[in-house]
Amino acid sequence: MHFTKAHGTGNDFVVLVDLDDELDLPAALVAAICDRHTGVGADGILRLTAGKGDAAVFMDYRNADGGIVEMCGNGVRVVAAHALANHLVPQGASDFVVGTRDGDKPVSVTFHNDGHVASVTVDMGPPTLEPERVPFVTNGDTAPNGQHTLDLPDGQVRLTPVSMGNPHAVLLVDDVATAPVTTLGPQLEQHERFPQRTNVEFAAPIDRSRVRLRVWERGVGETLSCGTGACATLVALQQQDLADTTVSVEVVGGTLIVTHRPGESVLLTGPVANVYTGTLGPDWLLAVRAHA
Amino acid sequence: MHFTKAHGTGNDFVVLVDLDDELDLPAALVAAICDRHTGVGADGILRLTAGKGDAAVFMDYRNADGGIVEMCGNGVRVVAAHALANHLVPQGASDFVVGTRDGDKPVSVTFHNDGHVASVTVDMGPPTLEPERVPFVTNGDTAPNGQHTLDLPDGQVRLTPVSMGNPHAVLLVDDVATAPVTTLGPQLEQHERFPQRTNVEFAAPIDRSRVRLRVWERGVGETLSCGTGACATLVALQQQDLADTTVSVEVVGGTLIVTHRPGESVLLTGPVANVYTGTLGPDWLLAVRAHA
Repeated sequence: MHFTKAHGTGNDFVVLVDLDDELDLPAALVAAICDRHTGVGADGILRLTAGKGDAAVFMDYRNADGGIVEMCGNGVRVVAAHALANHLVPQGASDFVVGTRDGDKPVSVTFHNDGHVASVTVDMGPPTLEPERVPFVTNGDTAPNGQHTLDLPDGQVRLTPVSMGNPHAVLLVDDVATAPVTTLGPQLEQHERFPQRTNVEFAAPIDRSRVRLRVWERGVGETLSCGTGACATLVALQQQDLADTTVSVEVVGGTLIVTHRPGESVLLTGPVANVYTGTLGPDWLLAVRAHA
Repeated sequence: MHFTKAHGTGNDFVVLVDLDDELDLPAALVAAICDRHTGVGADGILRLTAGKGDAAVFMDYRNADGGIVEMCGNGVRVVAAHALANHLVPQGASDFVVGTRDGDKPVSVTFHNDGHVASVTVDMGPPTLEPERVPFVTNGDTAPNGQHTLDLPDGQVRLTPVSMGNPHAVLLVDDVATAPVTTLGPQLEQHERFPQRTNVEFAAPIDRSRVRLRVWERGVGETLSCGTGACATLVALQQQDLADTTVSVEVVGGTLIVTHRPGESVLLTGPVANVYTGTLGPDWLLAVRAHA
C-alpha cells in the first residue's frame, strides 16, 4: 500500500490515491496506520477517489480513530495539492473543485516560480450559527453575541456553537499557552448538549486581524491545526465584533488566513507540505489485518 | 533520502542504510525527521554504517532531540534485523555482531518458517552498579540492596542507579498506571546527582519472573519501550532479591524477555516490526536544511 505523508500547518495526513475506489479501510486498519508509534502516525487518512459531477477528485476522510468525518479544511487543501501532483487536474490549474461528504468545495491554488504549490484556498461554504443545525441543545439559555452558557461539574463556560459542516465550540481565553485544552477539551467534546460531540477551539484574539488558537479535535485530541476550527473561530469572533473580515490564525503548527464576509462563504488559506512517500510493509499489513 | 520505519515493542525508529558513511545528520535535521507531526516521527534515528573488526554493521544512534547516544537495546535489535534484510550478513545468519559506540554487541536471531525474523536477542554486556560509573553522585548516602535515597523539592525517592552503557534510575512502584512518569521522570532526568542526566524506570513487579514497566527516556520523554531500561530493571530487582534469572518485562508497547546471571551479560530478547519504507520529499528536506 503506497502513501504520501503530508501536512497543512501541522495537521498531518496519510494520503492514499485510490481512483478506482478499491481500497477497503476498516476502522481498525485506519487506527493502526494512524498510530504514531507502531504505525505511520497521522491525524487522519485522506483517500482520493475519482470525482463526480463538477468535482475533479473526492476526499474520503477518516479520523485517527477510524471514524468517517464529513469535512476537514486542511484535508481539502492537502487533497487539492495531491490532485495537482497526480494530474487529476491540468498542470498549473488554479481553480477546481474537491468533492467531500459535506458537498463540493471550490479551491484556488497559488504557485511558486518553480511550479510547486505555494498555498491552497478552500471555499468552506457559509457557517451555520443556528444551534439545532450545529447541532447544539440550547436549553433556552440566553445567547448574547452568539455565546451560550454551559454547565460543567466545576463551573460554567461561555462558548459559541458554530457549524462549518462539522460542530465547533469556540471559547475565548486570555492565553493559549495556559488554556485548559486537554482537560476542558474532552469534557466539552462529550457534553450532552452537543449530541454529535464537538470540536473545541480555545481562541486568544491579539487584535481585530490576528488570533492565536489551540484546538481539541473530536475523536483525535489536541492537534497542531484544524481548518474548520480556524474558520469557526473567525465567525465566533465576528459575532462578538472582535474581528474584521480577514484574520491570520496562529495555530500551533503554523499560520492560516481566514476570510469571511457576512452572508458569504468562509475562505481558508494556507500552505501544504509533502514530507515523504512510503509503502506499508506487507508483513505489517498482514499482522494488522489478522488482529482487525 | 530513503528510510525504513520500524519498531521493537513500540520503541520506534527511522532506519537509514548508509554503508559508505556519506550522510550528514545535523541535530536539527534529526529533530525535524523525528517530529511526529511535521516529520516522519520516531523515538530516534538508526543509521547503519559498515562494521569494523568483528562487527557486521555499525549502529549510529541519534535520539529524537538530535543528540548522539551510546547505546539503545531495541535499536540494536532493529539494526540486526536490517543487517539481515540488507544482506550485510549471510541470509539466515543467526549469530553475528553489531558495533555500537558502547562497543560490540553480539546478537542471536530466531526465524519464522517463512524466513522472517521472529526475535532478536542482544548481549547487552554486564551491568554496572558502581555509582561513579553510572555516573551517579552518592553523597555518601546508605545503599541497602543497591538503592539510594535522593532528595527532591517535595520529598525523597529511593532508586537504584544502574548503567547499561547509559545511565538508569530504577524506581519501584505499586502500579505503573498511576506512576508519576511525566512529572517525576523529567525531575530525575535532570537531577544534579546524575551528571550525565538519566533514563528513569518505573517498575511494578508482579512476581519473580514478571514485571510491568514504564520508562522516561533521557532526551525523549516517555516511550513505549526501552531495551536498556528493561535490562537495568531486572538488575535492580535482582539486587533486592525480587526477581529470578529471567523476567518478562511488560512495557507499554509489548513484552521483552530479559535474562541475567550474576557476573554475566544481560540478554535482551524481543520482536522487530517493519512498518513501512519511505522516501523523504526533496522540497521538505530543502526547507528543513534551510532552517537548520
